[in-house]
Amino acid sequence: MNQFALLHIADSAYCFPVSEHEMVIRLRTAKNDIEKAWIVFESKYVIGDSQKKLPMEKELSGELYDYYSVKLELEDTRLAYVFYLYDGKEYFYFSEDGATVTYDFTKGYYNFFQYPYINSADILKKEAWLSQACFYQIFIDRFCMADDKKDKSYINLKWGEIPNSKSFAGGDLKGIISKLDYIKELGCDALYLTPIFTSPSNHKYDIVDYFEIDPQFGDKADLKELVKGIHDREMKIVLDAVFNHVSEKNDKFRDVLKKGRDSEFFDWFVIDGDFPTKDPLNYEVFAGCKYMPKWNTSNPKVQDHLISIATYYINEFDIDGWRLDVSDEISHDFWRRFRKEVKAAKESAVIIGENWHDASNYLRGDQYDSIMNYAFTKAALDYFAYGKLDAEGVSDKLNDILARNTDTVNDMMLNLLDSHDTDRFFSEVHEDKDRLKAALALLYLFPGAPSIFYGTECYTVGGYDPDCRRCMEWGKEKGTDLKALVKQLSDVRKKCAFSFSGTKIYASEDKKVLCIKRLGENASAALYINESDTIGQDNDIQVEPGSYRLFVGGGEIL
Amino acid sequence: MNQFALLHIADSAYCFPVSEHEMVIRLRTAKNDIEKAWIVFESKYVIGDSQKKLPMEKELSGELYDYYSVKLELEDTRLAYVFYLYDGKEYFYFSEDGATVTYDFTKGYYNFFQYPYINSADILKKEAWLSQACFYQIFIDRFCMADDKKDKSYINLKWGEIPNSKSFAGGDLKGIISKLDYIKELGCDALYLTPIFTSPSNHKYDIVDYFEIDPQFGDKADLKELVKGIHDREMKIVLDAVFNHVSEKNDKFRDVLKKGRDSEFFDWFVIDGDFPTKDPLNYEVFAGCKYMPKWNTSNPKVQDHLISIATYYINEFDIDGWRLDVSDEISHDFWRRFRKEVKAAKESAVIIGENWHDASNYLRGDQYDSIMNYAFTKAALDYFAYGKLDAEGVSDKLNDILARNTDTVNDMMLNLLDSHDTDRFFSEVHEDKDRLKAALALLYLFPGAPSIFYGTECYTVGGYDPDCRRCMEWGKEKGTDLKALVKQLSDVRKKCAFSFSGTKIYASEDKKVLCIKRLGENASAALYINESDTIGQDNDIQVEPGSYRLFVGGGEIL
Repeated sequence: MNQFALLHIADSAYCFPVSEHEMVIRLRTAKNDIEKAWIVFESKYVIGDSQKKLPMEKELSGELYDYYSVKLELEDTRLAYVFYLYDGKEYFYFSEDGATVTYDFTKGYYNFFQYPYINSADILKKEAWLSQACFYQIFIDRFCMADDKKDKSYINLKWGEIPNSKSFAGGDLKGIISKLDYIKELGCDALYLTPIFTSPSNHKYDIVDYFEIDPQFGDKADLKELVKGIHDREMKIVLDAVFNHVSEKNDKFRDVLKKGRDSEFFDWFVIDGDFPTKDPLNYEVFAGCKYMPKWNTSNPKVQDHLISIATYYINEFDIDGWRLDVSDEISHDFWRRFRKEVKAAKESAVIIGENWHDASNYLRGDQYDSIMNYAFTKAALDYFAYGKLDAEGVSDKLNDILARNTDTVNDMMLNLLDSHDTDRFFSEVHEDKDRLKAALALLYLFPGAPSIFYGTECYTVGGYDPDCRRCMEWGKEKGTDLKALVKQLSDVRKKCAFSFSGTKIYASEDKKVLCIKRLGENASAALYINESDTIGQDNDIQVEPGSYRLFVGGGEIL
Repeated sequence: MNQFALLHIADSAYCFPVSEHEMVIRLRTAKNDIEKAWIVFESKYVIGDSQKKLPMEKELSGELYDYYSVKLELEDTRLAYVFYLYDGKEYFYFSEDGATVTYDFTKGYYNFFQYPYINSADILKKEAWLSQACFYQIFIDRFCMADDKKDKSYINLKWGEIPNSKSFAGGDLKGIISKLDYIKELGCDALYLTPIFTSPSNHKYDIVDYFEIDPQFGDKADLKELVKGIHDREMKIVLDAVFNHVSEKNDKFRDVLKKGRDSEFFDWFVIDGDFPTKDPLNYEVFAGCKYMPKWNTSNPKVQDHLISIATYYINEFDIDGWRLDVSDEISHDFWRRFRKEVKAAKESAVIIGENWHDASNYLRGDQYDSIMNYAFTKAALDYFAYGKLDAEGVSDKLNDILARNTDTVNDMMLNLLDSHDTDRFFSEVHEDKDRLKAALALLYLFPGAPSIFYGTECYTVGGYDPDCRRCMEWGKEKGTDLKALVKQLSDVRKKCAFSFSGTKIYASEDKKVLCIKRLGENASAALYINESDTIGQDNDIQVEPGSYRLFVGGGEIL
């Protein structure tokens, strides 16, 4: 047995409650190293005298490791356990003491693994709507303009021309309202909007006034109408919380510019000196941008202020959640308070972080529900666009990504192929329509919620920011096939009602086909993707090169 | 290179801030597998263009793994990094993407490791007094009786006779006050007292009234006098917070017994029915004890109540911290609030959990400062008492234990050989005085704060509870040698002022000698222990079997 590979971490994605009487326990082993794995467990006050034993199943299989799991239904939730492993030759116990041939349960209180008690306050609950949602992300200035009464003098880009970083094309909230039926017809039932608050830029990630809608986009009446239109259609809306930094034109930063250390807001920022100066830059900013000073989110007053914004839009406008900009640069301490107050305002409101990296420490139940799953994005790019991963490689990678987080989090991940912060996926695959379609099929079948960046459905192209933020091409017939596909994929999700449990992702034996099998509340589904140059086969399913096949409830639907 | 062994976990004991501009980064590898390791790093907004590179040092070496570390001084704390490894034949990068021969920094934002920003609110700060303290733990009923005026009718054990679980011997706070000079002369400068609040039992872990001192032990004037006596001697006092459960005689539980679901306190407990019943038991209790109902610490009102107790004794009596009974069965959510309010009341107050197992998830800066280090206890038992570990085995084990937590936590660990919840260590080593002495030397030289269970210094014996809670033997000359040793060991700690950084624990090449090397602010020290049957040697230091040698600042002192 490869002892080096064994991994189990207390109170993590390897050991987590899914309800007040259910735990999921995972164990990592070397790939194909173990023949059988069991969990030996009992209440911690009983295990010294007697133990229960259950087999574990190989749930995920990554590049180097397999991940075994078991779900335990517990009466007494003071769980103590060790693993019992058979590698074909020998049996081992695995505990906090490492791998051992014997295990002394009578001294077990020193080194069994444990989940000491399931406290309901520590359970991350699955928000059902998020796990079943199909998202549509809108960069507002480029989506649709429908406000005929607004001052349009700021517009400097003719709709459809290629934008630069200073372009204003005129998209607004009324434009979104006018397209809600369009979005709904795509099967998307949740919107994620980039920021809508007063800001001098086209992206509005440098906010001047969080309590006002930018007049370029509309006003509060428009937001109310938008939310009503969304809720009337049984859709959801998530806004963008830019709480890492602010515009230098914000009144609080301006007060500090004026009064320096005498300003009551001086400690709301991180300034090395008596006044903020740009040259040399002596205050913390976002990404080196001097016009975006960073909030000091360790300061309780800043926390109060930002949280009051978050709850205001929930209480006054009934929005359904927040996407958190640059959330990983903000303190855990802040997100813990944020979660408590957001969930108190609206229990079903979701919290989706922008963490591009392993975010498991933010996803334990005390901070976010979900993140934008850029690890999935990268795996999809490496497979469909860059040729860095074959079917086996991407299967391994996707399994390893799923092993990072709990089942509950996996069901709520916001999966995406691209966004306003990346090149357009369609451009990355060199405008290969079949590849985009296969990638969309993967996006919709992968555990979590798919998110479509506006325009994907009509083959919008573009490189990195600002090129990925081109204007939506309305009134053309581009993408009729793609729109139908997106709708069909969302119908599959609605029909099946997938959950993470039971997901199998693997490569066919001939290493050509990426296979995704999902279980749903109502039906199961299977997706087979072949990005190799020759025909591939998984059992009796043949897949042509450069294509995919999708089966739902046993029948092929595409 | 053994890729299976490589481990790095974001935002954990593998990656943590120690100040607002310093990070410590660790990497786990297979033991003796790597020749050189470097960290390649930069601000996350710069690393795509240019990178810095620093060598890492092998800091810890456990049973299967080595742990490399490096401390980074950062101007911009948005840290992105990958590892670069040389195994004697090949070079590898190690990132979130695993081990790879090449690494594309231009796409690094997808899979470098990162610590996105050091927010001051997330830093676990080292509480200096805790890291330098020598603790003395007192089980009050058995330590010393000096209150001549109290009602002694409850006393049913003649001082010095063997106690059973129902024995009351009469120890009290005035007794402790009378022995403060004795404790101080032992070199101990911090007291941890088992519970002092109103309770029917001798141990008082089933509390009836948290706001009153049990009359068996004294009153609030006694507590004030005790704290004054302690602070006058530049000592500290930590009380026992029993917040997992309560006595069934507590007024709130009695109200529920009376009114059932109509009681305002019904949701303060976890009851499966309209009234709590003992047969069948339908409410959550501690360890199967029906007379100790468990608090529902997920309930904010329970949290408020228990936290008000914690802050009351800080605000009114100026105590220096809390030891948390059965803390691992209480919600993280509770401990997060608890920490905020305790630290707000007194910043230097310490929080020490009773978690017998890996508690790293409680030790991230948001919950405890420290735990009772029973993993150390078990390693010491396996080495000195059970013969399960030799010098190499215990060295490996101690290194693995240190690798569980951050440097900051390692410096604040409450290390112990025994307690009121274990057999007496002296009995476990079959009353071998040399072994106890060597174990005490290890206890005092190990990173963290040593804790002596009352009576250890006079060779008190005893099996498991209640036998480990025998009366202190005053007025006898037992242990003069041991008391001198304990004092000398504490003098070594005071003289050196150790911190974790620079600690080396290893076995001599002949595998006979356990070697502990410590760096201190003022002096370094080295301890050599030989528990084998024959003479052992580390470099030019020879150690007789069954003995130890201690050097401070290069000179031998014992």
